[in-house]
Amino acid sequence: MARRVPVPTLRTLGEFGLIARLTASLPRRGAGFLLGVGDDAAALRLPSGRTLLATTDLLVEGEDFRWEQADPVAVGWKALAVNVSDIAAMGGRPRFVLLGLAVPSGTPVARIDALYRGLRRAAGAFRVLLVGGDVSASTGPLLLAVTVLGEAGGRLLTRAGARVGETLWVTGRLGGSAAALAALSRGYRAAREAGGTGRGRPVPARLAGSLRRALTRHFRPCPRVRAGAALARRGLASAVIDVSDGLAGDLLHLCEASGVGALVEAAAVPVDPAAAAIGAWLRIDPLAWALGGGEDFELLFTTSAPAAAVRKTLARAGTGGAAAIGRILPRRAGLTLQHPDGTLSPISGGFEHFRSATAFRLDSRRPLR
Amino acid sequence: MARRVPVPTLRTLGEFGLIARLTASLPRRGAGFLLGVGDDAAALRLPSGRTLLATTDLLVEGEDFRWEQADPVAVGWKALAVNVSDIAAMGGRPRFVLLGLAVPSGTPVARIDALYRGLRRAAGAFRVLLVGGDVSASTGPLLLAVTVLGEAGGRLLTRAGARVGETLWVTGRLGGSAAALAALSRGYRAAREAGGTGRGRPVPARLAGSLRRALTRHFRPCPRVRAGAALARRGLASAVIDVSDGLAGDLLHLCEASGVGALVEAAAVPVDPAAAAIGAWLRIDPLAWALGGGEDFELLFTTSAPAAAVRKTLARAGTGGAAAIGRILPRRAGLTLQHPDGTLSPISGGFEHFRSATAFRLDSRRPLR
Repeated sequence: MARRVPVPTLRTLGEFGLIARLTASLPRRGAGFLLGVGDDAAALRLPSGRTLLATTDLLVEGEDFRWEQADPVAVGWKALAVNVSDIAAMGGRPRFVLLGLAVPSGTPVARIDALYRGLRRAAGAFRVLLVGGDVSASTGPLLLAVTVLGEAGGRLLTRAGARVGETLWVTGRLGGSAAALAALSRGYRAAREAGGTGRGRPVPARLAGSLRRALTRHFRPCPRVRAGAALARRGLASAVIDVSDGLAGDLLHLCEASGVGALVEAAAVPVDPAAAAIGAWLRIDPLAWALGGGEDFELLFTTSAPAAAVRKTLARAGTGGAAAIGRILPRRAGLTLQHPDGTLSPISGGFEHFRSATAFRLDSRRPLR
Repeated sequence: MARRVPVPTLRTLGEFGLIARLTASLPRRGAGFLLGVGDDAAALRLPSGRTLLATTDLLVEGEDFRWEQADPVAVGWKALAVNVSDIAAMGGRPRFVLLGLAVPSGTPVARIDALYRGLRRAAGAFRVLLVGGDVSASTGPLLLAVTVLGEAGGRLLTRAGARVGETLWVTGRLGGSAAALAALSRGYRAAREAGGTGRGRPVPARLAGSLRRALTRHFRPCPRVRAGAALARRGLASAVIDVSDGLAGDLLHLCEASGVGALVEAAAVPVDPAAAAIGAWLRIDPLAWALGGGEDFELLFTTSAPAAAVRKTLARAGTGGAAAIGRILPRRAGLTLQHPDGTLSPISGGFEHFRSATAFRLDSRRPLR
């Protein structure tokens, strides 16, 4: 009879054993940093006179990801990517990352190893160095606290610069991440190579490609660092935010910070073709995902520059396109969605913690007047 | 009959409501930072050519603090203080802080307010600006993920510079924090002004003062920023670490990083008088707290400088004293404690997550030869 080998957990490894394991492959010194993991603090150096950018995000098991749905490698990747996206939205370049990791003692070591593998892959892809961190036991869900430091490019791209009359743009296509989540929540299988667990109901063969693309958007987002840097260098954008809470919610943040209103043309919103295919299959309007789904990590920005200049700059930055989706109005106009039939409905929503998820609801469409 | 007013919780406030509440009193712009809370990332500027220090720490409810024992104001203070201590141990000045906060939805808003009050007080005391953060719902314990950025002083004080023949020093007095924890774990009352909840068994009147001082060490640590900066400026210390895991454990970290051994004279270890009084009462040798208790946030360092020079430098930095407690030996000598009667015992232990707390045990004293 085969003996069952116990799965090694953090209890067997201990804190310092875990730290040694996780940091064994990390550089101790290198370009741009004087001292990395292994002392009381990391010592870093930026080129003189550069502005430092700093952002922090929490990813909580059960809230931001589920082990039943996500491969730990994908969780590690995404934890870094969402922070890199914040740096991209300021027009900066990510440089360093610090990671806090709270883990239940019974967590299999293999899961933590996979999580770090994803994090290291993302660090390589985004050219970020892991320079510090902390691990702690927790009786609750696994949690990652990621802090990314970056350096600002030419012009600091804040949320607060939008002016009345400017055009509203978004890079890439929206709704893919939310479409993947909709399929996952219905129990459909997500392939491991797309960041899933490989478990669940099979999807019809004709949808396999679309679902894989949508899942990749959801689990392995690629923040628009080059696009943000290009907008900053050229001084093209007056206000920028990344689409993390959903187009509707993030537009609200941008407009509040800028003290303006906006009109979005529904027909101009670039819906991800994968989301469109999954939407047709699940009988959900993919525009709802594009407007309210969140986690697409595209850049939403305002500009007074001609469309041709914007397109040229972004094409060079490899964004795979960008779309003019509306215009900036005075604050009193509020946030409005114009439907293809000309009717108008107020824009609200976006994801908010502590409350039940308030996805943008297209079915609650009411004409404004 | 009085109507019971429901306690406002995060569920009623929502994520953005909470953020607005927490950041309302924060500066938006100011000296040293260009852009604070409210955008995708904070934009910061250090004097040209300065080295940036970065450290991150997690504080987890149930693991690092307990609501049954700690006032939320004290939890907020300590969350920042422990990170500031890491910057102090590098000889740096703390400048900015980013806070990640994971909270169960049912958490009373008053608790979060109090937590932030403590954090703001500490930020004022340590001259640190809160420039960014994230809040997330969690089904588990409340968790704070704190990242502090600072700038290095003259010389970077790492753990790795100790040389054979140098003297080992520690600032302040040790064991107070562990003595407080011992009293708390036995259910004794901790006054709110000392960081406790005001609940629990009363202590004998003659011990009230000692317990209050020990509790203040435990709940409201004051990291040795000025001492660290003075050591860095004068180039006095060859290796430095802060005493967070316990003298024994942190000495082990320092010796491992430096590739050396050490001998500590038990009689020279500065035991906190409050710990001595509580130890006599609870019949626990306070030296065990001083060696293994942790969370004293003093600085442990090595130097080849004469004692008079060290004392003079630290007195100016207001440390309230420092003690030469041993000497650095070759690595093969290991870590040894010399008792007043001349017997020797190996030093091991210090706090480690995921394993049961392994406080230094004096009762396991065995002569080495």
